[in-house]
Amino acid sequence: MLLLRRCRNLIQFVPLNTQRCQLAPALASCALRLCSSGISSEEQRAHHRGHRPSWRHAAAGLLVGAGAVVAYGLHQHKAERADITVSTIEKSSTLPVFSQEEVTKHRSLENGIWVTYKGGVYDITEFVAMHPGGDKILLAAGGALEPFWALYAVHNQEHVLEILSEYKVGELSVEDVRKQQQAGKSLDPYSTDPERHPVLHINSLKPFNAEPPPEILSDSYITPSAFFFKRNHLPVPQVDPASYQLHVEGLQGEVLTFSLEDLKTRFPKHTVTATLQCAGNRRGEMNKFKQVKGLNWGIAAISNATWGGARLRDVLLAAGYGPDVAQWARHVQFEGLDKDVTGTTYGASIPLNKAVSEEGDVLLAYEMNGEDLPPDHGFPVRVVVPGIVGARNVKWLGKIIVSAEESSSHWQQNDYKGFSPGTDWDTVDFKSAPAIQELPIQSAITTPADGAAVSRSDETLTVKGYAWSGGGREVVRVDVSLDGGKTWQVAQLRSSERGETPEPSPPPGRAWAWKLWEITAPLPAEAQEVEIICKAVDNSYNVQPDTVSPIWNLRGVLSNAWHRVKVKIREDESEE
Amino acid sequence: MLLLRRCRNLIQFVPLNTQRCQLAPALASCALRLCSSGISSEEQRAHHRGHRPSWRHAAAGLLVGAGAVVAYGLHQHKAERADITVSTIEKSSTLPVFSQEEVTKHRSLENGIWVTYKGGVYDITEFVAMHPGGDKILLAAGGALEPFWALYAVHNQEHVLEILSEYKVGELSVEDVRKQQQAGKSLDPYSTDPERHPVLHINSLKPFNAEPPPEILSDSYITPSAFFFKRNHLPVPQVDPASYQLHVEGLQGEVLTFSLEDLKTRFPKHTVTATLQCAGNRRGEMNKFKQVKGLNWGIAAISNATWGGARLRDVLLAAGYGPDVAQWARHVQFEGLDKDVTGTTYGASIPLNKAVSEEGDVLLAYEMNGEDLPPDHGFPVRVVVPGIVGARNVKWLGKIIVSAEESSSHWQQNDYKGFSPGTDWDTVDFKSAPAIQELPIQSAITTPADGAAVSRSDETLTVKGYAWSGGGREVVRVDVSLDGGKTWQVAQLRSSERGETPEPSPPPGRAWAWKLWEITAPLPAEAQEVEIICKAVDNSYNVQPDTVSPIWNLRGVLSNAWHRVKVKIREDESEE
Repeated sequence: MLLLRRCRNLIQFVPLNTQRCQLAPALASCALRLCSSGISSEEQRAHHRGHRPSWRHAAAGLLVGAGAVVAYGLHQHKAERADITVSTIEKSSTLPVFSQEEVTKHRSLENGIWVTYKGGVYDITEFVAMHPGGDKILLAAGGALEPFWALYAVHNQEHVLEILSEYKVGELSVEDVRKQQQAGKSLDPYSTDPERHPVLHINSLKPFNAEPPPEILSDSYITPSAFFFKRNHLPVPQVDPASYQLHVEGLQGEVLTFSLEDLKTRFPKHTVTATLQCAGNRRGEMNKFKQVKGLNWGIAAISNATWGGARLRDVLLAAGYGPDVAQWARHVQFEGLDKDVTGTTYGASIPLNKAVSEEGDVLLAYEMNGEDLPPDHGFPVRVVVPGIVGARNVKWLGKIIVSAEESSSHWQQNDYKGFSPGTDWDTVDFKSAPAIQELPIQSAITTPADGAAVSRSDETLTVKGYAWSGGGREVVRVDVSLDGGKTWQVAQLRSSERGETPEPSPPPGRAWAWKLWEITAPLPAEAQEVEIICKAVDNSYNVQPDTVSPIWNLRGVLSNAWHRVKVKIREDESEE
Repeated sequence: MLLLRRCRNLIQFVPLNTQRCQLAPALASCALRLCSSGISSEEQRAHHRGHRPSWRHAAAGLLVGAGAVVAYGLHQHKAERADITVSTIEKSSTLPVFSQEEVTKHRSLENGIWVTYKGGVYDITEFVAMHPGGDKILLAAGGALEPFWALYAVHNQEHVLEILSEYKVGELSVEDVRKQQQAGKSLDPYSTDPERHPVLHINSLKPFNAEPPPEILSDSYITPSAFFFKRNHLPVPQVDPASYQLHVEGLQGEVLTFSLEDLKTRFPKHTVTATLQCAGNRRGEMNKFKQVKGLNWGIAAISNATWGGARLRDVLLAAGYGPDVAQWARHVQFEGLDKDVTGTTYGASIPLNKAVSEEGDVLLAYEMNGEDLPPDHGFPVRVVVPGIVGARNVKWLGKIIVSAEESSSHWQQNDYKGFSPGTDWDTVDFKSAPAIQELPIQSAITTPADGAAVSRSDETLTVKGYAWSGGGREVVRVDVSLDGGKTWQVAQLRSSERGETPEPSPPPGRAWAWKLWEITAPLPAEAQEVEIICKAVDNSYNVQPDTVSPIWNLRGVLSNAWHRVKVKIREDESEE
């Protein structure tokens, strides 16, 4: 039972800030330089390996400090100081030596499930039933763990190695270790990921997950694509637009195929300005209350863009959707072209009525802010499902399946769901909660930053932020408090670029884009510190909850409590 | 300015409980008997007048204590103890005596606006601009206030008489007072209101507004019609079903008319189980924090029924709705047959897309729970707009107008809107907020009642309640805390009568009916008092706010903070 509970912790991330604190300043700058240079993490590791061997793991750990998650090094660096000596994994031992051929024979529960990791051989037969990721672990049976862990960075933690070490049964032969290392050099599936803007705060390098500095969000109503938050589950696939094919299944019994040209020429192009938000936006605030599992997002895993493409409705109608299909179909599933080593693609689904509604505005988008989709945002074609959690806006779209069932993907069934604060990893039943689709009302303060100082002589304080609600519900009001919630003022809302004529209010249920807001208020006379709070209201008069703890959930999703920022008032020295 | 502020308080109700405390027990029972006997308030007043003249006002006040709102007496009874002597209104004075003929000459701002009230003559010319109800006050110009105040019970308060007394200019001639009294005997527009079930808690007798005891709500999934909360804005109109006509305007330029028979035979009958909730449900909790204006509803201004009728969509299509109309139309307005003395009907509107959507399920209902609509619920035809605030579910439907504009009615434009807690009657701009349509997530504890005691020997505590969300969003979870919010348990949800097979989940966006919920948990071992809290989550993962004060608003609508109930644990005497 204890072991099981430890397994539940497998996918727990160490909060980013904790990691950062452990960096020596000189190395931190080095890591930052590496990070922004765009070279692959494999190259980074090689670089440090040659440079100073004994620091090799620590240096890799630094990359984590700068945002990377492939933290082979970090856990070991930490383990050196921990009671549990994980270093046994790499030490020579008195355990028997096995050849790869021998390991390969252990690929079933009958013969035992063996895997290798960094030259060690592990019999994980008993662990299989306890693996949080389920049967997927069997894909590694008889082989090396590295290719899988390279994709699923959640494994790169101290806990995981601790558990693994308990199952060690031998060493892999020196010859086979060398073969694996040779293979490993061309292994990194992220090596073809695109370059990214250095201003982004990286929460995970592989897969790439990053958000812009919050103040950038309120600079422009439409978020420039380079600053739009990135949320990848897998490596960015390389797709040739000329040979791109979109398959549509489940209609009239046959699979239809559309080229990119088909999508651009056979259907009218529609543009929709829509805000996308990750279910994990503001997870960091939940982490502060109590540790959750997932990327430690700040408040900027949300952005707003203008998307152009064919309407999903039009494509489905052209593919044979009609009243007969409506009789039995309930969901539209999407499969991405992004794959793990086993060939499993990212997948999700949305309710059919959203997909086919004239007012749903679901796009098969090939443009973002007037240009081709960038690689990180789904080039050449992605789904944009306005009002719906980012996770269903499947990028690098490969297949559409009209179905009576939801997507069976991990991300639809066993992730992206909300639970009661009392539900933990021992009691959670993923079937008991609906897959997140529409998101609740949200707002946050983008400036000033928490901990900022303002001068008393400024007399007034300008606060800016964003507000958005799911399901096309329009934000109708943002209340701002400068006294920790005692009194509230109404902020000014903006739904266009500054200086541009605001668009007329969208039709009911089709407010897909956020509102930016701003308020300038006198600095409280006596206070030395101001607690700023914002909370938004949508046109269904849904409001944000006051505090984090009652909405805390084990995956740290749906974090939409009032956003609070503390600012110090710096008394000015009197001039004489 | 002070006067203006006092005017803003015109429609402030004294909380019911305060009034109840002032009742002498004997008179209270008398009042209750009168209340449940179904006789009109005019008869009640006559009864008491003959019985004991000096108690006439106090007795009328009692009716308020038992739920009546026509509190001609109450404010006077209270005024006798107050500093401000409102009794001047009825006292003979040294002011000049005017005839009705003279009063009638003062009907314009040029000649002055005069009105009479209980034998007094008042020049309210200067007050007109400050009247919270706007120009409507001019309807009484040159005549008696009584017929208007009989309809709008909000005037029956101490404040109103205080203000009125400042404008007194004379006495009405004895002869004309006698004429008014004769006319007044047949004046009561509420005399034909139907009988109601005595178990209802009456928040206002004229118009009739009442809610069932909360525990009745969780007794049955479908609320029996007699217990379904009543929310009338005006007297219940007497409608002959044989000559009933529904007019449809705004389509193809002509007015179409449908009889009740037409609605029943020309369109398929649809049934929809839908929960209706008053925007003011749970206003009492806001009142406890800070006084608001409106009926002091408890937690039971919400009920669930099965409605049968023609689809509004079908009727509109038959009346000529089509793509050409969709080009310019945005709203569907409804007018009731319930009227005030000026002939102004109750009115409201809903967005066109809700009205014509196949998935909107808007009904022109002629059945409630399998029988003809009861008079209080709109006989013979009402609108049922599932997922939308009660106020738009217009009863006694007389007219439908397809329009580019929202209803211009008071209730659409200057009522039933939400505001920031910092907005008061001096700063409110009703144009700045959208008319409430979809309501936010809601839940409440129906049993145990606040202040109840349970026995330690019970060992467990069973808590029951309801949960519902607007816009067809399905309630997916109710969290219950027995320790004031420190820890939470998940309640069991029910969406059918007990013992019946639950219906399958409704299609997304069409969960119109509430869920009842229940949880049985061990009594906390040490505690002498348990604070029970409930909070619900809908499938857009909207949640209720923690506390009342940040959602407080001047009209006391949209009160959906966590519901809290305190229960005492009675230690059992040890038996020997």
